[in-house]
Amino acid sequence: MTTGVWLVGARGNVATTAMVGARAIANGVTGTEGMVTERPPCDALDLPFVDSLVFGGHDVQSGSVVEQAEALHERNGVPGRAALDAVRDDLAAIDDRIEVGTARNCGTTVERLADEAADEADSLREITNQIRTDYDAFAEAEDLDRVVVVNVASSEPVPHDPTQYDTVDAIEAALDDDDPLPASSLYAYAALSAGYPFVNFTPNAANALPGIRELAERENVPHMGRDGKTGETLMKSALAPMFADRNLRVESWEGHNILGNGDGEVLEDEENKAGKLDSKGGVLDGILDEPFHNRVRIDYTPALADWKTAWDDVRFRGFLDTQMKLQFTWEGSDSALAAPLVLDLARLVAYADREGEGGLQPHLASFFKAPLGVDEHRLAAQFDMLTEYVARHTDARADAEGGA
Amino acid sequence: MTTGVWLVGARGNVATTAMVGARAIANGVTGTEGMVTERPPCDALDLPFVDSLVFGGHDVQSGSVVEQAEALHERNGVPGRAALDAVRDDLAAIDDRIEVGTARNCGTTVERLADEAADEADSLREITNQIRTDYDAFAEAEDLDRVVVVNVASSEPVPHDPTQYDTVDAIEAALDDDDPLPASSLYAYAALSAGYPFVNFTPNAANALPGIRELAERENVPHMGRDGKTGETLMKSALAPMFADRNLRVESWEGHNILGNGDGEVLEDEENKAGKLDSKGGVLDGILDEPFHNRVRIDYTPALADWKTAWDDVRFRGFLDTQMKLQFTWEGSDSALAAPLVLDLARLVAYADREGEGGLQPHLASFFKAPLGVDEHRLAAQFDMLTEYVARHTDARADAEGGA
Amino acid sequence: MTTGVWLVGARGNVATTAMVGARAIANGVTGTEGMVTERPPCDALDLPFVDSLVFGGHDVQSGSVVEQAEALHERNGVPGRAALDAVRDDLAAIDDRIEVGTARNCGTTVERLADEAADEADSLREITNQIRTDYDAFAEAEDLDRVVVVNVASSEPVPHDPTQYDTVDAIEAALDDDDPLPASSLYAYAALSAGYPFVNFTPNAANALPGIRELAERENVPHMGRDGKTGETLMKSALAPMFADRNLRVESWEGHNILGNGDGEVLEDEENKAGKLDSKGGVLDGILDEPFHNRVRIDYTPALADWKTAWDDVRFRGFLDTQMKLQFTWEGSDSALAAPLVLDLARLVAYADREGEGGLQPHLASFFKAPLGVDEHRLAAQFDMLTEYVARHTDARADAEGGA
Amino acid sequence: MTTGVWLVGARGNVATTAMVGARAIANGVTGTEGMVTERPPCDALDLPFVDSLVFGGHDVQSGSVVEQAEALHERNGVPGRAALDAVRDDLAAIDDRIEVGTARNCGTTVERLADEAADEADSLREITNQIRTDYDAFAEAEDLDRVVVVNVASSEPVPHDPTQYDTVDAIEAALDDDDPLPASSLYAYAALSAGYPFVNFTPNAANALPGIRELAERENVPHMGRDGKTGETLMKSALAPMFADRNLRVESWEGHNILGNGDGEVLEDEENKAGKLDSKGGVLDGILDEPFHNRVRIDYTPALADWKTAWDDVRFRGFLDTQMKLQFTWEGSDSALAAPLVLDLARLVAYADREGEGGLQPHLASFFKAPLGVDEHRLAAQFDMLTEYVARHTDARADAEGGA
Ligand SMILES: NC(=O)c1ccc[n+]([C@@H]2O[C@H](COP(=O)([O-])OP(=O)(O)OC[C@H]3O[C@@H](n4cnc5c(N)ncnc54)[C@H](O)[C@@H]3O)[C@@H](O)[C@H]2O)c1
Ligand SMILES: NC(=O)c1ccc[n+]([C@@H]2O[C@H](COP(=O)([O-])OP(=O)(O)OC[C@H]3O[C@@H](n4cnc5c(N)ncnc54)[C@H](O)[C@@H]3O)[C@@H](O)[C@H]2O)c1
Ligand SMILES: NC(=O)c1ccc[n+]([C@@H]2O[C@H](COP(=O)([O-])OP(=O)(O)OC[C@H]3O[C@@H](n4cnc5c(N)ncnc54)[C@H](O)[C@@H]3O)[C@@H](O)[C@H]2O)c1
Ligand SMILES: NC(=O)c1ccc[n+]([C@@H]2O[C@H](COP(=O)([O-])OP(=O)(O)OC[C@H]3O[C@@H](n4cnc5c(N)ncnc54)[C@H](O)[C@@H]3O)[C@@H](O)[C@H]2O)c1
Ligand code: NA
Ligand code: NA
Repeated sequence: MTTGVWLVGARGNVATTAMVGARAIANGVTGTEGMVTERPPCDALDLPFVDSLVFGGHDVQSGSVVEQAEALHERNGVPGRAALDAVRDDLAAIDDRIEVGTARNCGTTVERLADEAADEADSLREITNQIRTDYDAFAEAEDLDRVVVVNVASSEPVPHDPTQYDTVDAIEAALDDDDPLPASSLYAYAALSAGYPFVNFTPNAANALPGIRELAERENVPHMGRDGKTGETLMKSALAPMFADRNLRVESWEGHNILGNGDGEVLEDEENKAGKLDSKGGVLDGILDEPFHNRVRIDYTPALADWKTAWDDVRFRGFLDTQMKLQFTWEGSDSALAAPLVLDLARLVAYADREGEGGLQPHLASFFKAPLGVDEHRLAAQFDMLTEYVARHTDARADAEGGA
Repeated sequence: MTTGVWLVGARGNVATTAMVGARAIANGVTGTEGMVTERPPCDALDLPFVDSLVFGGHDVQSGSVVEQAEALHERNGVPGRAALDAVRDDLAAIDDRIEVGTARNCGTTVERLADEAADEADSLREITNQIRTDYDAFAEAEDLDRVVVVNVASSEPVPHDPTQYDTVDAIEAALDDDDPLPASSLYAYAALSAGYPFVNFTPNAANALPGIRELAERENVPHMGRDGKTGETLMKSALAPMFADRNLRVESWEGHNILGNGDGEVLEDEENKAGKLDSKGGVLDGILDEPFHNRVRIDYTPALADWKTAWDDVRFRGFLDTQMKLQFTWEGSDSALAAPLVLDLARLVAYADREGEGGLQPHLASFFKAPLGVDEHRLAAQFDMLTEYVARHTDARADAEGGA
Repeated sequence: MTTGVWLVGARGNVATTAMVGARAIANGVTGTEGMVTERPPCDALDLPFVDSLVFGGHDVQSGSVVEQAEALHERNGVPGRAALDAVRDDLAAIDDRIEVGTARNCGTTVERLADEAADEADSLREITNQIRTDYDAFAEAEDLDRVVVVNVASSEPVPHDPTQYDTVDAIEAALDDDDPLPASSLYAYAALSAGYPFVNFTPNAANALPGIRELAERENVPHMGRDGKTGETLMKSALAPMFADRNLRVESWEGHNILGNGDGEVLEDEENKAGKLDSKGGVLDGILDEPFHNRVRIDYTPALADWKTAWDDVRFRGFLDTQMKLQFTWEGSDSALAAPLVLDLARLVAYADREGEGGLQPHLASFFKAPLGVDEHRLAAQFDMLTEYVARHTDARADAEGGA
Repeated sequence: MTTGVWLVGARGNVATTAMVGARAIANGVTGTEGMVTERPPCDALDLPFVDSLVFGGHDVQSGSVVEQAEALHERNGVPGRAALDAVRDDLAAIDDRIEVGTARNCGTTVERLADEAADEADSLREITNQIRTDYDAFAEAEDLDRVVVVNVASSEPVPHDPTQYDTVDAIEAALDDDDPLPASSLYAYAALSAGYPFVNFTPNAANALPGIRELAERENVPHMGRDGKTGETLMKSALAPMFADRNLRVESWEGHNILGNGDGEVLEDEENKAGKLDSKGGVLDGILDEPFHNRVRIDYTPALADWKTAWDDVRFRGFLDTQMKLQFTWEGSDSALAAPLVLDLARLVAYADREGEGGLQPHLASFFKAPLGVDEHRLAAQFDMLTEYVARHTDARADAEGGA
């Protein structure tokens, strides 16, 4: 079974790192660290093999994945030289499968960066049709059993009134009227309406709009999002339950993130930053009962390149009114943290699709800062959901096999 | 129903802070932050009220709890002035219920500090008899329905060959022969043989010896331990599962603890430190699959007084072999972290005793660095065990009530 | 010789802590840690004694210094109970010497806080006359040999075009025309025109306006500023020379400050923050040769109260193009850091005044983030200037004495 | 003028990185960051050019500098690929100039690593003669105007009674009697007795023995040491004066170093660690007046490779007895920090030698943790000494030129 992975934002850091990594694993030059699906419980599922994944995608900046990978190596040391050398030809082949996308309603910063985007004059219907045509052509050309679309494009501004798009009909009307639907939702619409599973790794509206969710239900296509949980927010979801369970009342949680990659550059734009701050801030509010001072800062610091550094300062009150504190510094390669999750998610929604499980995929909550349709933000409890999902499927299989 | 809480090490920081806090809560001058039993799920259990707990205990240093509380306030600011003023009389009353304990086989450092300990010439039988007499006298004098013993005495050296005490008979023989059983085990023996529940909040051998465990089973008395999980190790048990579940391979985890209180002073002695390092180090090994560099340092730094500071440096390897890192600094009042758990544990073992649930109490695993009889070290999973225990008991009650 | 210290912002944290400290030292209940003038080299100068200083001041908020000191103790633990008890009566006496000041052009945040300020309708001339009358009355009532004015009032917005006030005449014209001169400059004008030495511990314009500086020269009155260097910026001025001298090229220096006191509250207002960010940022630019990424954030986090925490992240490039990093966390009581310097500065400008040394006092550069008239920002070099000043004066004295 | 730089420990990390860097600079593929002599004030001196330095040395481990440089690149990313490729041939040429040294009295750890050391049976006289022969042969073969010897070999145990070697005669006698003089002193003796300037970049005894110092005086050969000041200790010497000058009384300074390179491995041996801890600890004692808790830990953590990480925790007491704190984390490539200083020192002692300035070189104090013959540990004051030295020499030159 061959599975196609269509990456929106295919020349970005996350996409490039995901493709380099998948091909480096396929070529046996690196291990599978960082991939959740390569260890228990998920390794018990019958997932598409990493080395069988076929990549393609959309982008709005010219260039090539090979160049992007070289640049990542030069600036960050990730990927390493050996991995890069081993996958160069594979990347060149992928380059041929990257199509021109749309930068519609992505904000001025992205529009400025986009040197290769769908014609400004095109109607939204023309754009979504073209996107769907690209998906179909990929499936056909590569002779794929299944295509999943993963959005790893730049952060967009939050749409002005997202609630207005609360039905499929409202979405259809917005497409007809050239309403300012963001690009992410156009990609999601095109995918889900044609039966392609969709994952939103970004903080963008995409498939979070109620009308798009209704569409996915109606078409019974699996989808999930939003905003991959990779660093500071991952830490928060691991640590905040400790404070809650121990009855240590958090009084303030200050998070200061500095990063120097393309994502950081786009997030310099206050408009594009808003969605990110939302999903980052929400996790703590979802875990801690009582109100507290909750601030997240994201600052662009070019010297860090892709090595995102988060400094968090937590003050909490315990026994006898005693104020105490925790501070942590997390320093990780942003793309090396995100990329394996992109592969995990592609594999897991492909699996769900094969099992005929359409709609939201709550068992994937642990992957996201703002998991659609899930209120549980505690990391361990989210992992329990994944474990139970796997158990359900492997028990079913065992039963089936046992019965045979 | 009145419950007596007998604290071994009653004039120590943890004991004093627990008693100040309990009485400050009873007097309405502080809240219940830090107490696990005062929030869901445990608040649904029918536990002895905090303000009904009656305190007594053993110690081997002279002095008074009032003086100790004053000293804690002066050096650390914890307890605060208001709490201290509100409980002064209550503490004075407790002072009358503190008896002379034994420092047998506690190492030279503790023996040096002990200015008021059982006679060196006494046999172990004489000592355990006296201890039991003290427990009984407390129960009678205060007209208590139940007495639970909580060990919060200084760290002891690890006994030379703990496996030799693997049956009740071996313990009895050791008592007869004046074998070098550590003081903590004498307190545990005296308690469990007379039907008093026992909690070991220290890294000491106490009730961890197989023979003592057999005794508790035989007598059907609840007991649990060991080594309260309050700071760095608590953090480890919250964070390590994140690395494991995300397939981020930990390569080294360096923990450096500095503290300046009495516990720190005793731990300066390499002999006494060994047990502590064992229980601190074990948590990570119990969570992370693969071998890694695991070191814990504990250093005595008087300037910090009771404000223990831990600095941890974690290096882990993720996608594409990328090494990343997490560093954290935890700064907490050691006693304010530990004291509420002492109250929690006293209430929960009293409850188990009333329910007739003898032997080890695995649902209390989350409270301990090295939970007896439990291999699960992941904090959230340990809390799940507690939640399930509570659910079992509240459902049972609901059934019973429903049935009535 | 009795010296009066007139504090503008007399009920603020810094002023209150300075007065509590001075009186606690006078009463022998605390040491002189934190005071530069109490150790070499300055202790060799014949400075007014700390216990002889007489305090008074202006403020625009009602309340009392005693209450403020109590509040500081409750929220921060500083001052401690013993010091506070020892000085309560002294503070009450000072309260009688605090007059109503002006909040003119201090921005809306300060105006909102000011419940007791000079009449809005008064002309600038009326205001400056009243201020001077207050200074004179203090000198007379307390029979003082000398009065020095130290501005420790809240941060103000930066005046729109400070260069327009570049001569004494321009200042006089502005006063006549009710131009928007900030309150700090009114206090400075009133002081310097009447021969009272003036120190600006705030980031405010005050005596930094060229016209005010000309006035001080003309009247031969010592003055200095601006913005006391107490925490993160002090660290920067100690550390940046190390990078420069070792040819380690700083690429980015991110500073994130969180604080929860009144100063933090005022700095929440972007308008008032501007001046502070200027003086904080300037130090590094003054030490490091090459351009680099230099950002300072100041965030208000109430849970910290007066305990300002700075987190700095420095990336620098060394041999073979290697990027390395330094991160530090500084946590100090903001007022306990600033207050002793207020006493130091009062003593040192009083001394300069007695020596007839009018105009700017470059030897005091080490005390300020943005030392007026001094380009040297390296802490050690600034201390050398102080050492040389002291040497000059003590040698002169030795010569004089030797000659006698 | 060609200058030879003879590195004792020539295949170690520091030596290799110094040689790679010098040749990379010569080949124009990297800048001179990290070199003190390449910026003011030293760049005004007429120093030997970096690209004219000729390298040779001793070691006791087999292998080649090229292999060592490759290994450094693989493990640490430093040197980078481009630099390494550019200097490969140069390194191969240097390999031919590396001779077998002696591991005498270097402790069992070094002896175990040493697979290529002078015969155990040789007398000390035979060994020192051979060393001197190697120095001479290098000078002759490469037609060098001058040879300077820089010791960058592994840390040795501290000699049992260093004071016994307090005269040249005592040294000579020790050589005759095969007393346990450490290898470092043999290299120093051989160099200084033959007129070759000597720099001790290690914590080893070497030229610190009084008898060796007397020898250098007598022969009028410049020499200096000991223990290069590159990371945590550099920070201490920059920061401690700030506390002193501000009258902030340090109560404890805890330093925890973790590193994973060869130096770390040797320092695992308590014997070899002693000298390092001495020189690291001494800096603070030399700056801070009053006694305080001063501890330095060095732990071997292989995962860090050459990226040494120091965590320091400083508690200090300021105004009103307020305890405050500073914590820092320094993470640097150990070799990239040390290597440029090796080049600086070689150039500066070569210069001194040309100027006829024998004996200790106090103006080089800033380079060392324990500068021989210098009590000044404050970094800025040490840099002032360097600045004055340069001024003296450039003024002299200007005078000379002016006079011509
Ligand atoms: N790296 C992480 O840890 C992480 C975690 C969570 C979420 N994310 C999100 O993943 C996304 C990608 O991050 P990145 O670091 O790869 O950013 P990037 O800037 O390197 O890449 C984004 C790519 O998307 C392209 N793009 C922008 N708008 C597009 C459009 N409308 N259609 C098609 N392509 C478009 C850009 O040209 C660029 O190539 C961001 O939204 C980021 O917030 C990243
Ligand atoms: N504070 C924490 O966060 C924490 C966490 C886990 C475990 N613990 C453990 O709790 C224990 C108490 O810690 P602390 O900070 O209160 O120490 P402490 O030194 O302040 O108090 C210990 C007390 O025990 C007394 N004592 C010693 N040996 C005794 C004996 N044989 N019989 C009776 N009394 C004896 C001492 O005289 C002292 O009063 C230690 O073993 C410590 O390791 C503390
Ligand atoms: N604490 C430090 O470390 C530090 C360092 C450098 C500079 N400073 C500066 O010192 C000043 C005082 O800081 P703080 O923490 O005491 O602040 P604060 O808010 O506690 O006190 C300021 C006081 O000034 C009064 N005030 C405001 N405007 C006034 C006016 N026009 N006339 C008279 N009084 C006025 C306020 O009512 C208040 O009582 C601030 O400008 C701050 O930026 C403080
Ligand atoms: N890297 C730094 O920041 C720094 C700072 C100060 C001091 N130092 C000192 O510099 C020295 C070198 O450090 P490194 O990181 O290069 O260590 P390393 O272990 O990589 O190199 C030491 C080299 O010396 C060789 N050696 C050992 N004993 C010898 C002997 N008797 N004769 C000749 N060669 C011998 C070893 O074989 C090895 O090749 C150490 O003493 C270290 O303490 C390093
Ligand atoms: Na769980
Ligand atoms: Na200086």
